Amino acid sequence: MYAPTARTTASRSRDRMSYDRDAAHAVLDEAYHCVLGFVVDGAPRLLPTLHVRVDDVLYLHGSTGSRPLLAARGDAGLPVCVSVTLLDGLVYARSQFHHSANYRSVVVHGTAHLVTGDDDKRAALTALVEKVGAGRAADSRPPSRRELAETAVLALPLREVSVRSRTGGVGDEPADLELPHWAGVVPLRLTAGAPEPADGVVAPVPPYLPVPGPVA
Amino acid sequence: MYAPTARTTASRSRDRMSYDRDAAHAVLDEAYHCVLGFVVDGAPRLLPTLHVRVDDVLYLHGSTGSRPLLAARGDAGLPVCVSVTLLDGLVYARSQFHHSANYRSVVVHGTAHLVTGDDDKRAALTALVEKVGAGRAADSRPPSRRELAETAVLALPLREVSVRSRTGGVGDEPADLELPHWAGVVPLRLTAGAPEPADGVVAPVPPYLPVPGPVA
Repeated sequence: MYAPTARTTASRSRDRMSYDRDAAHAVLDEAYHCVLGFVVDGAPRLLPTLHVRVDDVLYLHGSTGSRPLLAARGDAGLPVCVSVTLLDGLVYARSQFHHSANYRSVVVHGTAHLVTGDDDKRAALTALVEKVGAGRAADSRPPSRRELAETAVLALPLREVSVRSRTGGVGDEPADLELPHWAGVVPLRLTAGAPEPADGVVAPVPPYLPVPGPVA
Repeated sequence: MYAPTARTTASRSRDRMSYDRDAAHAVLDEAYHCVLGFVVDGAPRLLPTLHVRVDDVLYLHGSTGSRPLLAARGDAGLPVCVSVTLLDGLVYARSQFHHSANYRSVVVHGTAHLVTGDDDKRAALTALVEKVGAGRAADSRPPSRRELAETAVLALPLREVSVRSRTGGVGDEPADLELPHWAGVVPLRLTAGAPEPADGVVAPVPPYLPVPGPVA
């Protein structure tokens, strides 16, 4: 369990909140992309990016020229908020008020630091590559010294973490159950299509690619 | 075209940026959910939520108890940043450095205000319901006075808007093209499953539900 804090405690819908470590890790691991939030001149900035979790650290991919990564270069690091959302379905209630969505989301608060050591950076980049296919790191060319220098990775310790989710069916009021409107859930899943090889590729489709069909 | 500003101008990868109004609208309309970013006590906060675009206004769904919506109650409104991302594929290059993702994302900066008038709020909620099925608003019970009071909607004018996207295939270095590794793209799509009716529903599946298969 992650310890709740003031900013990870919901002001409402507390029944949808959790601080369970395994549940948070599962959402972070299933999602390919996240949103990185930070503050510039007092105003919020958002940057979609790719992430990978290794134990209790979230690594965020970036480039050395991007603003948040430059800001995270200092010893103080960069105060950030990272959000990951998996949309699981659309909920059609008989009442418009109870229309909703099924989802699993994680929000992480903390201070991100730039990964500086080459070995640490290589390890994080390997994890990012392994995330899209377990075994891909050994089946691709590792970064050159120049490529490594051109890539930036942020590390965010997973300490202040909350999970919010909605699952299940329609939550209509009892008085509405006799209304004639259709009610139910349309499930949604991120789904992989057939791999599309680049021109000139002769290697067979590797076994570590996502299989066509629902991801995770 | 939206006019670029300092904070919607990329510090790098400018070739992936656009300010095209139709492209931005298409991404906002296809995505069911977004992330709302705002600042509390100098630190970033993120809140995943549902949105709908009506002309050049983005409406964000919330509840009257939530922090950002309370903050947006004042005349000054709430400085926000909203991000929407559609993940279109995973890009496997021969080099780890050129691994990437295909995506379309929109970032909106601006000041959000709480929608206060009952008629305006009803119109925004109707648009939110219509987004999950054109015709659903007429085929569901409208909000009661109490339900309307319990729902909050933020309005964010679409003025400072950028689109970032990556499409297409692998961008390997010429020197890497002879490497033996598989390279290509695994396309990803959000896909609807078969509708799951709630207990007791006798109405047939309405024609406005997303058809099983890729969404949009």
